[in-house]
Amino acid sequence: MTPPMEPAMHLGAFFFTPGSHSAGWRHPEAVPETDMSFAHYVAMAQAAERGKLDCIFFQDTAAVNGSAALHGGSPWRPTAARQVFPEPATLIAALAPVTSRIGLVATATTTYGDPYTLARRFGTVDHLSGGRAGWNLVTSQIEDEAGNFGFDRHPDHAERYERAEEFFDVATGLWDSFDEGAFPRDKQTGQFLDPARGHILNHAGKHFRVRGPLNLPRCPQGRPVIAQAGSSGPGRQLASRVADMIFTAQSDLAEAQAFYRDVKARAAAHGRDPAHVKIMPGLLIVTGPTEEAAQAHYRSLEALVDDETAVNLLSRLCGDLDIRQFPLDGPLPDLPPSNAARARQEHLVAKARRENLTVRQVARYLGASLGHHLLVGAPPKVADVMEEWLRAGACDGFMLLFPYYPKPLEDIVEHIVPELQRRGLFRTDYAGTTLRDHLGIPVPPSRYAT
Amino acid sequence: MTPPMEPAMHLGAFFFTPGSHSAGWRHPEAVPETDMSFAHYVAMAQAAERGKLDCIFFQDTAAVNGSAALHGGSPWRPTAARQVFPEPATLIAALAPVTSRIGLVATATTTYGDPYTLARRFGTVDHLSGGRAGWNLVTSQIEDEAGNFGFDRHPDHAERYERAEEFFDVATGLWDSFDEGAFPRDKQTGQFLDPARGHILNHAGKHFRVRGPLNLPRCPQGRPVIAQAGSSGPGRQLASRVADMIFTAQSDLAEAQAFYRDVKARAAAHGRDPAHVKIMPGLLIVTGPTEEAAQAHYRSLEALVDDETAVNLLSRLCGDLDIRQFPLDGPLPDLPPSNAARARQEHLVAKARRENLTVRQVARYLGASLGHHLLVGAPPKVADVMEEWLRAGACDGFMLLFPYYPKPLEDIVEHIVPELQRRGLFRTDYAGTTLRDHLGIPVPPSRYAT
Repeated sequence: MTPPMEPAMHLGAFFFTPGSHSAGWRHPEAVPETDMSFAHYVAMAQAAERGKLDCIFFQDTAAVNGSAALHGGSPWRPTAARQVFPEPATLIAALAPVTSRIGLVATATTTYGDPYTLARRFGTVDHLSGGRAGWNLVTSQIEDEAGNFGFDRHPDHAERYERAEEFFDVATGLWDSFDEGAFPRDKQTGQFLDPARGHILNHAGKHFRVRGPLNLPRCPQGRPVIAQAGSSGPGRQLASRVADMIFTAQSDLAEAQAFYRDVKARAAAHGRDPAHVKIMPGLLIVTGPTEEAAQAHYRSLEALVDDETAVNLLSRLCGDLDIRQFPLDGPLPDLPPSNAARARQEHLVAKARRENLTVRQVARYLGASLGHHLLVGAPPKVADVMEEWLRAGACDGFMLLFPYYPKPLEDIVEHIVPELQRRGLFRTDYAGTTLRDHLGIPVPPSRYAT
Repeated sequence: MTPPMEPAMHLGAFFFTPGSHSAGWRHPEAVPETDMSFAHYVAMAQAAERGKLDCIFFQDTAAVNGSAALHGGSPWRPTAARQVFPEPATLIAALAPVTSRIGLVATATTTYGDPYTLARRFGTVDHLSGGRAGWNLVTSQIEDEAGNFGFDRHPDHAERYERAEEFFDVATGLWDSFDEGAFPRDKQTGQFLDPARGHILNHAGKHFRVRGPLNLPRCPQGRPVIAQAGSSGPGRQLASRVADMIFTAQSDLAEAQAFYRDVKARAAAHGRDPAHVKIMPGLLIVTGPTEEAAQAHYRSLEALVDDETAVNLLSRLCGDLDIRQFPLDGPLPDLPPSNAARARQEHLVAKARRENLTVRQVARYLGASLGHHLLVGAPPKVADVMEEWLRAGACDGFMLLFPYYPKPLEDIVEHIVPELQRRGLFRTDYAGTTLRDHLGIPVPPSRYAT
């Protein structure tokens, strides 16, 4: 089945409520209750769908951030938002009936949990949404999670990636349990199930032993769309093998081009069509009706960053290194290899070296943007950069971050999307019904297909 | 907070699609696609809500039934329905936005999985449904599940119950992580979280080590309603300690009264108010406009039972004993203690002895009713029995089973519920908004409340 043709750019809306800016929730326009308000999630999902975005995309952390108190002191800081949010695979199920076309992507870790349960849950969302589910396959980074699953700390980076590879193999094997047409449910003959179309996985590997079959018919999309955010060495290896969508942190055009070429080449080396791997760097847009308004909006956001929170975020990203021991206005020191988010750490160090940034400046950039590309300007200027990146082979689209919710998302839908549509870069309506249709990637064949 | 007063009877709708009757899906009125059709789930949930039922209640099995081929031969039988269905905790999330009052209960095992993930998922449903979530806490019975989680067979019955007790303690501890008002989200002061209202569980037990806190604010219901179906010795002990709702198999009034007295006394011995433990035996109603029509309807269902499927179901319930070695028309033999559903097995044996049933008759009864109370008659006669059980102290209401879907559920809503309402036994509208309101049970205090 050939998916419908679509214009070139793909857009997702990233949800890290109440804001990807560490203090965005304090902005006068912000609704800080967006972290737990289902009514707001419904309105935001519907806004993103009005904007014809490919998908909404929910981050996840299976812990209260900072609760493990790795750096001593109080287990949580009163000013720190982003502590609580709905479990995202549950949330996307609830958003399915209030939307009709937009893709619904939720993050779930492979470091804890088991592939049978995960395959059931995401497969269920794919069924009840008519083929709109996506799984952002991650390895756990935030150390706070380990204590909630019986561990003192995460398995190391290599072990986590090895487990993630096997987790993917088991989950995709389970999704192939039944071929199309395996359930005739024929009242006359009494045949409910066609055993010839059922397959038992019998997986026995280093990390998992899973018999199968999965107790779901084949998904509308064959299997949910797989997203992956790993940009480190093992992360790229995993993403290029398994991911349909890659969410990455890139703020330099040349670096992004190099990443794009590398990942597409790796995908080809895995025997995949590189066109079926969509690379979507994070992008936090700060806009306004004029350049001046956009710049003023950015200053109002910058004024919210508090250095303590920002430096704590930077310390967290550095794993066990307490960045607070270094002078705030001195250069960013060399960082030891982290067991946490290695790729974003490398991205930040490269940016700091390139732009000669101090610890404070790096921390503020992280605090304002989560370490992703931050773009300030009126819609034409923003669209210029997005178009440049797309045409330069630096990306297939963008994962849009928001400093707070819901206004900046509405602004994108009302002002940036129309600008991209005028340029013929982005769809004016959905051509298909599934997330694979929107992304222009085919339903994968079953491993049992002959 | 005192819950609103409600009339005495509580009713739930049990979902075991496409039918609790083993071959109900072949009935001319049946829609066998109800197992996977989300549109039908929406319509059925809305029908149950029109009937003002307390809740809809989804069973679960984390496997294709019979796939482990314990008794040899083909891993699945072409005639066996109930092989695939949506993962129920995901399904109830999706049903929340299309309903407004009815409780949403899903089954999840404590034998596999971990309490942090489960507490997040059900807590999320409680938040996004405005306090309508329930968790049917079970231990795994169907041996097919073990192979999907790395085991050859389940831990034994006692071990499963011990794990279930600890699983409950951890989950409820996590739901108490934050007090009411723990998230002021105050833009002016910058205080997002009030650390004095947060609690770290630090659980370290035999089966689980979980640090906490749970990354959710306190649930609208304090915690989701807990349902439990254990009726064996350890099952009653667990249910009387933890359950707000108890789903049990009882078809004899005197036995049901004895069960009711025993469980309420056990609840009191745990320091609980016995009125806050609602006992709801399963009840499969076969009805029609007249007695003759109801009997004819029953005959059409009886004609569908095929002995092979029924005997296989009975064998499954007997664990490792292959019941097929005994003459079909001889008496039911003594059964060795099963590692599976011990209480339902005991219930069936008691019924067989009482009514002098053969293997074939027991198997057919199980095939038609799942081993639950089967009641045939026009609405007044059915309501008479329901009223008698309620007034005799045999139950607080019923969990309604359906031989197939969706017509028998619609019949209950249109014909049985009005009859109960006329008698003043059942609410004519919801008085409250949460499942606890409907059941007349209070929000439990936090373990940290002073």
